[in-house]
Amino acid sequence: MDEKNYPFSKIYKNALIGLERESLRVDENGKMSQAPHLKSFKDSNPYIQTDFAQNQVEIITPPKKSVDELFSYLKASHQIVSNSYKDEFLWSFSTPGTTPKESDIKIAKKSNAEAYKYRKYLAKKYGKLKQLMCGIHYNFSFDRETLDEIYADEPNKDELINELYMKLARNYMRYRYILTCFLGATPFAIAGGNKDVFRSFRQSPFGYKNLEKIDVSYESLDAYKKSIKTALKKGQISFKQELYVDVRIRYEKERINYIEFRNFDLNPFEPYGINRDDIEFIKLFIVLMAFLPEKECKAGDELQDKTTLGHPFSECVNLSEAKEILNSMRELSAKLGKSTNLAQILDEKEKALDNPKLTLAGKVLTLCKNKDEFLEFGLSLARKHKEIYSQNPYSLHGFETLELSTQSLIKTAISRGIGVEILDRSQNIIKLSYDDAQEILKSANMSSKDSLISYFIMQNKSVTKKILSENGINTPKSLDFAGFDEALEVYDEFDKLVIKPQNTNYGLGITIFEEKPSFDNFREALTNAFSEDSVVLIEEFVKGEEYRFYVQDDKVLAISKREPPKVVGDGKSTISELIDILNQDPQRKDGHIAPMCYVKKNEPVKLWIESQGFSFDSVLEAGQEITLRKNSNVSTGGISIDKTDEIDEFYKDIAIKSAKALKSRICGIDMIINEKNYAVIEANFNPAMMIHLFPKIGKSRDVATPFLEMLFGEI
Amino acid sequence: MDEKNYPFSKIYKNALIGLERESLRVDENGKMSQAPHLKSFKDSNPYIQTDFAQNQVEIITPPKKSVDELFSYLKASHQIVSNSYKDEFLWSFSTPGTTPKESDIKIAKKSNAEAYKYRKYLAKKYGKLKQLMCGIHYNFSFDRETLDEIYADEPNKDELINELYMKLARNYMRYRYILTCFLGATPFAIAGGNKDVFRSFRQSPFGYKNLEKIDVSYESLDAYKKSIKTALKKGQISFKQELYVDVRIRYEKERINYIEFRNFDLNPFEPYGINRDDIEFIKLFIVLMAFLPEKECKAGDELQDKTTLGHPFSECVNLSEAKEILNSMRELSAKLGKSTNLAQILDEKEKALDNPKLTLAGKVLTLCKNKDEFLEFGLSLARKHKEIYSQNPYSLHGFETLELSTQSLIKTAISRGIGVEILDRSQNIIKLSYDDAQEILKSANMSSKDSLISYFIMQNKSVTKKILSENGINTPKSLDFAGFDEALEVYDEFDKLVIKPQNTNYGLGITIFEEKPSFDNFREALTNAFSEDSVVLIEEFVKGEEYRFYVQDDKVLAISKREPPKVVGDGKSTISELIDILNQDPQRKDGHIAPMCYVKKNEPVKLWIESQGFSFDSVLEAGQEITLRKNSNVSTGGISIDKTDEIDEFYKDIAIKSAKALKSRICGIDMIINEKNYAVIEANFNPAMMIHLFPKIGKSRDVATPFLEMLFGEI
Repeated sequence: MDEKNYPFSKIYKNALIGLERESLRVDENGKMSQAPHLKSFKDSNPYIQTDFAQNQVEIITPPKKSVDELFSYLKASHQIVSNSYKDEFLWSFSTPGTTPKESDIKIAKKSNAEAYKYRKYLAKKYGKLKQLMCGIHYNFSFDRETLDEIYADEPNKDELINELYMKLARNYMRYRYILTCFLGATPFAIAGGNKDVFRSFRQSPFGYKNLEKIDVSYESLDAYKKSIKTALKKGQISFKQELYVDVRIRYEKERINYIEFRNFDLNPFEPYGINRDDIEFIKLFIVLMAFLPEKECKAGDELQDKTTLGHPFSECVNLSEAKEILNSMRELSAKLGKSTNLAQILDEKEKALDNPKLTLAGKVLTLCKNKDEFLEFGLSLARKHKEIYSQNPYSLHGFETLELSTQSLIKTAISRGIGVEILDRSQNIIKLSYDDAQEILKSANMSSKDSLISYFIMQNKSVTKKILSENGINTPKSLDFAGFDEALEVYDEFDKLVIKPQNTNYGLGITIFEEKPSFDNFREALTNAFSEDSVVLIEEFVKGEEYRFYVQDDKVLAISKREPPKVVGDGKSTISELIDILNQDPQRKDGHIAPMCYVKKNEPVKLWIESQGFSFDSVLEAGQEITLRKNSNVSTGGISIDKTDEIDEFYKDIAIKSAKALKSRICGIDMIINEKNYAVIEANFNPAMMIHLFPKIGKSRDVATPFLEMLFGEI
Repeated sequence: MDEKNYPFSKIYKNALIGLERESLRVDENGKMSQAPHLKSFKDSNPYIQTDFAQNQVEIITPPKKSVDELFSYLKASHQIVSNSYKDEFLWSFSTPGTTPKESDIKIAKKSNAEAYKYRKYLAKKYGKLKQLMCGIHYNFSFDRETLDEIYADEPNKDELINELYMKLARNYMRYRYILTCFLGATPFAIAGGNKDVFRSFRQSPFGYKNLEKIDVSYESLDAYKKSIKTALKKGQISFKQELYVDVRIRYEKERINYIEFRNFDLNPFEPYGINRDDIEFIKLFIVLMAFLPEKECKAGDELQDKTTLGHPFSECVNLSEAKEILNSMRELSAKLGKSTNLAQILDEKEKALDNPKLTLAGKVLTLCKNKDEFLEFGLSLARKHKEIYSQNPYSLHGFETLELSTQSLIKTAISRGIGVEILDRSQNIIKLSYDDAQEILKSANMSSKDSLISYFIMQNKSVTKKILSENGINTPKSLDFAGFDEALEVYDEFDKLVIKPQNTNYGLGITIFEEKPSFDNFREALTNAFSEDSVVLIEEFVKGEEYRFYVQDDKVLAISKREPPKVVGDGKSTISELIDILNQDPQRKDGHIAPMCYVKKNEPVKLWIESQGFSFDSVLEAGQEITLRKNSNVSTGGISIDKTDEIDEFYKDIAIKSAKALKSRICGIDMIINEKNYAVIEANFNPAMMIHLFPKIGKSRDVATPFLEMLFGEI
């Protein structure tokens, strides 16, 4: 590649990053958790794994071009892990805060016998304690398609790409001390007595290293492979993965797929082990390594060792070179235009070079002066992080802009080891993968399992009613009219009825006849309605309570009762103030991203309150309750109350029969039920799981797991 | 039922009518067609049957509440039958215009052995000639649900309903002469010499009657059943269906389902054998019969016989009673409000009472003075009707407001004996029934066979492209930008490209770079595009011809090339005039109801013409051809050219692979093809069969039949 002319922006933007973050689960005193890794996470879970110890959780993101997207997965998995172990904390440092007995360190159970054997071997060779050190692994790859395009005319394309990766690796080894200078964050040694401080104990020669230093060559892929073979032959290591080096080349056959960079301590200040800006900073550093002219490689190890062993407040071991590298990074970042905040990030790093107290290790040591305070300092951070993981528990962290039902589905999917990919965030289109099966979903429940025509049927209320009624299910009769005379003619056809303008401003033009009206009253009601709209609906009136039945594959999995929003007086506050208080509920947000919606102080609410003899300024007596709207829709502030266990089988059968008639595998059936009768008023092709997952009152119903089981079989 | 208080309007509006219209297929000389009934119509066809003779076609409508809907089916089946026998005519009268030899009358072949045996028996007993008489059977039933409601509180509901029908039958028998007076239309006898004229030879004692008059009682259902049993026992008839009476009670077990009224001659002036208003008139007459106080029944036969035998110009046999009946009908019709034109219809009938020349038979005799002119008169009507059946052959008569693809599907369905029900006309939702299977369809191709998620995938262009591209299919890369700087940054990522505002007024703001532009030109093009819209698309440019592949179940069934509309100069007309001529093509209409759309003289067309150096007022030289739009969409006047047999298998495989990747069973794949390459630019969940059924140039491809076979198996 012509180094002057390479399409840097394209290479940078298309490059993929994946992260692995290890962390120790500890109790409130910082002791190793003895609780086993949850079986439900599964050994095959692509996001949540165990490392060496059973309490050493490893959170893995899929490779992503976008740092934001990467961070979403990181956040989500942290939230899920933390919430799965209610009383535990994720230790924030790479080195443990306490020194557990070897017997309190439980090797992680693995269904794969080899994996377990390997861990036993490590325990024996290095001791269990050393294995508890945690870190971030930063996986990097160029976008293959982009490289294929760039090297399109080269006959030895694959070789050139391998060489690009190897050059990057060599340069990285040479300059990695600069990253360590900024990001090293293990000032305190793992074992007991040693009171020295380091920039990075974990990365130091005393840290997480092979017993004997292994000479690894990055000259070429072949040379790299040969180094490993030699180390195995010499007995320096017994497994390929035992090679504890900062740069691991990941290849398949003769082709390098990605590089794993392992020289990152956990950032203890970050709930996710790494700062979002640092991910971007490291990416730029890595890409620079591919294009920087090479210097002698060997010097790299020496610089790195010096850096790790240095005092956190000490100056960078090669300040001028570090500044040069920052400058080169700045030049590159200029080519990326204005869409990144790299310039600002680089400014911060520059400052840290001038003032080492601003490096990570520097910051830690500033706040935690010596090892005696380490445990408590670490715990205070872990508690803070736990709080962050616990915020808005209904939502899935990192995915908060998706519809809540989709968030919930992804949450369950990640917990169950089902692969998740967002195909269109604004449209809530996702792809789930499990074993060899893949399913694309829209708005959670719309899948390959339901047919296209069921969707159009349910979208069309009159066709839905026709089909339900052909199948012997009660539906309220409804007719619409564009003409007054025509409407008058159906007087005979209705008994109890509602007359309403098609587009109604709640209240205006609506007349409800709970008994058959006289013809004159009927005419008057029509006149009234037609004065509001040119199209008027005449509907059979069915009085009763409104329920939503969630039906999947001929089973009712959940039932919610829907009620309009209400306020209860305290003898002091106005209705307007009571509404403000109601809207402070963190479970209320606009859109579909929270369990409930705000109650707006708009015309329909005003009219409805007035119809009860109040205004926004009225003060309700203590205990006096009023509804704020006539309708119970969630979208206008209505609440749902779980009634799954209380509704008679008869009505469940009606809901199942309705779903069957509409040939739907998954849907929501809306039913009005009174003492004597029922009527199915609507069928919903997208039943909104959130209604049942997050009822305002009553038990949450897990409808996500059965849905995933419908998609993938047993999970 | 309290006769004063019955909900007449509801009963009338919900009552169901079904029609059967028999007709003789004849050649251009009026001779019996010797062509067999088409096998493809099938014996089980609910709409198109044969009666006694193979050339005696019987067109049957499903029972309908709405006369308009009923008439749709009548029209459609007539069009299908007529178009299936290109050189034949449907004889318009109930009596044949020629007297064929017995050997030229071929008994209809039936797969049902009993049915064939019955026809042989009839031929022997009555002679084949008599069996050639055709008519309309008018089937009537009350809506069961309506009656169930009315009689809800009656313990002997079923009995009361039967009695209502029987009373109706008795009154009908009593007053039917009035209908015959208006609608009798067989002035000329069937057999050779007789030169007498009748009001209705067919209904007269010489007409289509049993050899011996059979005494049928309508006192009760039991009595009616007994009459038939007695006639069978006496040997007056050998089959139940041999009972040639004007009123047949249709029952199952002890329950009357409907009544068949058989006393209607074909209306020779009407292409569909009956006048639309007369259907309404007869319906009102029938419903009146249910509520009219009874008179002695016996007198009915005498009045009817007198009427049938009367001269077409003679006065009604009981004028004052007929006027009374008309008055009663008028009273009833007043209760129906203003939504019917019954008042006007009744006025017409009143006039005909006063002037018998205005009755049907009167009109025939006025135009066709004697039997010698009968054949030529009948043929002239049949020719006129044939012309009507042949209009707009692409459309399905009676269903012209549906999308053309849906019309075509229904046309094939009716031809193949698949039941059709319109569930929502404006949304093109229909139900098809075949044997025990039912399928609901929207806009022709959207069915239970495709999955909901495929629909959402194809609706989302970026998700579609992602999936296609993961499956190794070329798609043009496309990115959209809301910011100028962000857009500038992807300069590297494109080679040939199109820059365009998201919402573009054809031409404005678009730049096409057929070679990679300089950065400055790229920037200028972006500035240009952003001056038109706040969102700008950058798309890889793929030059070539645009094709639509119609893919069903991994097979390409049709391929169309799409071209923009064009005009060719004649050296005199302006472009504006040439567009007018183009738009006179009857295949062009607005909406989706014709094979092509109008070319509007709007801004995009104006700009495009101007870009070629012309204006609407330019006169093109003779033979000079210009395109009228840049784009080839059918909706803006583009044309399609069938290329099914010309496109290489390679591209067909790409289309199939695309459909497979999208997990679609039926879809349209849009592909751009050039000498070197191709790109799939879009996938359509609703592939618009009409493109392939009605290409402007090239062979029509029947994609409807394979689709029906996909739904129902072999048809």
